Amino acid sequence: MKKGVMRPGHVQIRVLDMGEAVKHYTELLGMIETDRDDQGRVYLKAWTEVDKFSLVLREADEPGCDFMGFKVVDEDTLVNLEKDLVAYGVEVEQVPAEELKDCGRRVRFTVPSGHAFELYADKKYTGKWGVSSVNPEAWPRGLQGMKAVRFDHCLFYGPELAAVYDIFVNVLGFDLAEQVLDPEGTRIAQFLTVSMKEHDIAFIHHEEKAKFHHASFFLETWEDVLRAADLISMTDTSIDIGPTRHGLTHGKTIYFFDPSGNRNEVFCGGDYFYPDHKPVTWQAEQLGKAIFYHDRILN
Amino acid sequence: MKKGVMRPGHVQIRVLDMGEAVKHYTELLGMIETDRDDQGRVYLKAWTEVDKFSLVLREADEPGCDFMGFKVVDEDTLVNLEKDLVAYGVEVEQVPAEELKDCGRRVRFTVPSGHAFELYADKKYTGKWGVSSVNPEAWPRGLQGMKAVRFDHCLFYGPELAAVYDIFVNVLGFDLAEQVLDPEGTRIAQFLTVSMKEHDIAFIHHEEKAKFHHASFFLETWEDVLRAADLISMTDTSIDIGPTRHGLTHGKTIYFFDPSGNRNEVFCGGDYFYPDHKPVTWQAEQLGKAIFYHDRILN
Amino acid sequence: MKKGVMRPGHVQIRVLDMGEAVKHYTELLGMIETDRDDQGRVYLKAWTEVDKFSLVLREADEPGCDFMGFKVVDEDTLVNLEKDLVAYGVEVEQVPAEELKDCGRRVRFTVPSGHAFELYADKKYTGKWGVSSVNPEAWPRGLQGMKAVRFDHCLFYGPELAAVYDIFVNVLGFDLAEQVLDPEGTRIAQFLTVSMKEHDIAFIHHEEKAKFHHASFFLETWEDVLRAADLISMTDTSIDIGPTRHGLTHGKTIYFFDPSGNRNEVFCGGDYFYPDHKPVTWQAEQLGKAIFYHDRILN
Amino acid sequence: MKKGVMRPGHVQIRVLDMGEAVKHYTELLGMIETDRDDQGRVYLKAWTEVDKFSLVLREADEPGCDFMGFKVVDEDTLVNLEKDLVAYGVEVEQVPAEELKDCGRRVRFTVPSGHAFELYADKKYTGKWGVSSVNPEAWPRGLQGMKAVRFDHCLFYGPELAAVYDIFVNVLGFDLAEQVLDPEGTRIAQFLTVSMKEHDIAFIHHEEKAKFHHASFFLETWEDVLRAADLISMTDTSIDIGPTRHGLTHGKTIYFFDPSGNRNEVFCGGDYFYPDHKPVTWQAEQLGKAIFYHDRILN
Repeated sequence: MKKGVMRPGHVQIRVLDMGEAVKHYTELLGMIETDRDDQGRVYLKAWTEVDKFSLVLREADEPGCDFMGFKVVDEDTLVNLEKDLVAYGVEVEQVPAEELKDCGRRVRFTVPSGHAFELYADKKYTGKWGVSSVNPEAWPRGLQGMKAVRFDHCLFYGPELAAVYDIFVNVLGFDLAEQVLDPEGTRIAQFLTVSMKEHDIAFIHHEEKAKFHHASFFLETWEDVLRAADLISMTDTSIDIGPTRHGLTHGKTIYFFDPSGNRNEVFCGGDYFYPDHKPVTWQAEQLGKAIFYHDRILN
Repeated sequence: MKKGVMRPGHVQIRVLDMGEAVKHYTELLGMIETDRDDQGRVYLKAWTEVDKFSLVLREADEPGCDFMGFKVVDEDTLVNLEKDLVAYGVEVEQVPAEELKDCGRRVRFTVPSGHAFELYADKKYTGKWGVSSVNPEAWPRGLQGMKAVRFDHCLFYGPELAAVYDIFVNVLGFDLAEQVLDPEGTRIAQFLTVSMKEHDIAFIHHEEKAKFHHASFFLETWEDVLRAADLISMTDTSIDIGPTRHGLTHGKTIYFFDPSGNRNEVFCGGDYFYPDHKPVTWQAEQLGKAIFYHDRILN
Repeated sequence: MKKGVMRPGHVQIRVLDMGEAVKHYTELLGMIETDRDDQGRVYLKAWTEVDKFSLVLREADEPGCDFMGFKVVDEDTLVNLEKDLVAYGVEVEQVPAEELKDCGRRVRFTVPSGHAFELYADKKYTGKWGVSSVNPEAWPRGLQGMKAVRFDHCLFYGPELAAVYDIFVNVLGFDLAEQVLDPEGTRIAQFLTVSMKEHDIAFIHHEEKAKFHHASFFLETWEDVLRAADLISMTDTSIDIGPTRHGLTHGKTIYFFDPSGNRNEVFCGGDYFYPDHKPVTWQAEQLGKAIFYHDRILN
Repeated sequence: MKKGVMRPGHVQIRVLDMGEAVKHYTELLGMIETDRDDQGRVYLKAWTEVDKFSLVLREADEPGCDFMGFKVVDEDTLVNLEKDLVAYGVEVEQVPAEELKDCGRRVRFTVPSGHAFELYADKKYTGKWGVSSVNPEAWPRGLQGMKAVRFDHCLFYGPELAAVYDIFVNVLGFDLAEQVLDPEGTRIAQFLTVSMKEHDIAFIHHEEKAKFHHASFFLETWEDVLRAADLISMTDTSIDIGPTRHGLTHGKTIYFFDPSGNRNEVFCGGDYFYPDHKPVTWQAEQLGKAIFYHDRILN
């Protein structure tokens, strides 16, 4: 949090059928619907999140990610980061307050990999769902499905990783926690953090721009990962891989798909990060193990 | 335990290189070497087992399973079961006491699927490894690798399942806990038990006789299954599938290979059985889910 | 299961307020109400149990246990065990079929410790709750609270343990799995089993007759034990001790009270038993550790 | 990390017998001895820590904590924080580089509760123990005992909490994550963080100055907490309470004592924190539940 960027605050995802999507993210992932807007967008949050929403679903003709937003500590920080982006040559767009309900103004920009990001300082504080801020119980009763703890990070595919790195690290104050290097030493994957988490955002090299790999949601334990896998089977949801462990970050994970074909991850654990940690390096020759630690091959 | 057959007591497995095999079963699976014999066979046990050994490794030119032995409650039971086998038309072979060190006489027979089994009543009682029988600690310090709890069951492939069923159920007192039926109602897999375990032995239909699918070892928890998967990766051991859950029995599992190519399973959990339970049926159309509950396809 | 006694099949518990009791056993423990009878008794089962009920609640002026019943494999076995009890000098009482709804005739007897037990062979088979017997899912959605897996055992306090032992071991075919011996070698606690479980019933010496210590319900994992403890706190239920581990059986456990003051246990894990296992002995000098393995003192 | 304080970096603890203490912290907690110095002090670290040590043991006539040190991001930050402390009226003491081996200069100060703290920017980077920084395995083989993951925080008792709060929050950039308020609204406990952790340091009101409650070490899972409790029993270590859950932070925990009488905690889980989180408040009337969530009474 060197420059005041605090956390991944929201992601807007395109879905083909809103009813199916809401059912998927509430009944299966266990998120809570908190609002809808005039555009028909649906707002959801995970139970430990203190702000009103972290996931926005928008009905569209094809799946994918519209943008990912990072919350910064305050308006002054937002002003400064905006200046820094512009100074660095990044074109920024103003999204007015309330374009997302109960969210303050957002500063939007697109990075050379083709992905759109936003910074914002304000969102309605609703507190954790189902637990009081006074003498809080350990967890709320009444959670559904996988009982997702929080929206955690996204993984994107695209070109120009070095240019993207410069923006996130040099302008926005992220750190490089983990990387994959090819034999020539070129970084083909970068896991970036502004927190103790091993990644708040990750990019993997791909020739095509603006590809969305997955949005990830945190679970508490490996047993929750098992139950998530069971629920995937019970609900006949399309699974990608898992339960397994990643080599990169060492998180314990499952990949699966929402009804529109967007990949979701739920995971637990994983290493932690401090700014004095040297980056962990994975060699591209070991990419299978880096991605799927147990199988050691890509699926 | 209607007829006095108590449990899977041992399995003799052929390995190509004894040194590598012993390393695999001790350092990786966490079994304890308890003896060797004149033939060069190596005897091992898992720590909770009270008898001297449950796994016998024999060096040979090809991998596989020589035989699996069941312990019966006493010599009278052995005498009776031998008579019942003969009366049923099963040819039995006498293996004298001490052919396996510290093991009493064994009654050996081959079932129509081509697999060899044994019954025996006596084996040297050594008690659990590493814990006292007086004021015992919860577990012994000093276990290695996966810390296998016990040899649990084997799965065999072969023809003539109905004839094999008759011997195990009608002569030896096993119960059918789970089955897979094809659309014509033919049983193409049978999971048989003499205990509260959902299977002490299992057979899947295959045209070729005498095929060995895996020997299985019990672990205590799903977290132990994760650590087992991690160790498989760390030791560059060949993995087959997992961590995952079976549909059949609902056990949580990993399949992997010993250095000779014999498949091992480690697993935890799974359903329990009593003799008044009606068999669980899986439809062959759902065989993918029956075998691998999460992926729902065969690998 | 040497003599055909299969498992603890039911326990009838006295409660002071039926409404509160039903709420406790359904919403907190997660049992399912399956019926009520003319006497106002309420029948419940845990989800993995295949018979109609395992817990019967009877409203009364004081709490306690009316009787515990064991299911035997069939009517012939029941006839034989009844004869054996009578031949041994145990007075038996006939309870007609349907005295408990959908339960066959019961043979009731009181042992010298003052506790009443029953044997029965028939109860309505309803199958597991919430999962099919064809292609069954791993667990049912919609379970409440602690999601109790099964009624597991009871622990009683009373005198004359040796005489009680003789009836259970010599007449009914139980085995002694664990015991506590005082310095003179007198058995002051006995844990008896007819299965792979380390205890199906247990007795601890106490001068007063017919004392009920607890009815115990099985949970799947140590994480479920934590959630159970959390729920105890959230519902302001009276806790006795835990989460902790027992020395005896090594089960992981919590003790707490129903609204009438009956002690409940939920636990997971624990050692397993085969009839050739020598009994585990705890010395009375180590009773604290035997009961509560971590604290090593009695509470 | 608003002002550049990064994490609890070390704690120096007084022990009565160095041999016993080293055995306790290595064989039981699973820390690794990394060095000793001329004064006879012993340096240890937990395996995930990238710096050379986090625990320093000093032999003395009575147990307790000499000081706790926080690592800051760099020397500039150290210079600034030192100025800020002095400007705020806090007396600072210079401890030269190498007074602790391989550690840079430290700025020491005592807060009004009577406890000594240090800031430092440099310590020898040794990387995680037992795993490579290139293609790292998930965890190192060969860890002992509880396999402590990291030194996590300390809890101190003393007076003048408001004055201590001002130094940590206003000068050093900590946030208040959780607090206990008495009926008059006076803060009698404060849990302070500079990270995503729910506490990096905590203070509870006590009339006497400079009391040390415990040093806490992180474990990965609730199952590790169980194994830690088992090891406490196996090694006949003095236990205080647990396994249980705290209300404050919701961490899952055990308290026990080192051979000198210093209280240790090992714990896992617990809530996470971001700077926009409002403090969680526990009412003093609920102090029992705040401290020990399951028992709801103080021990």
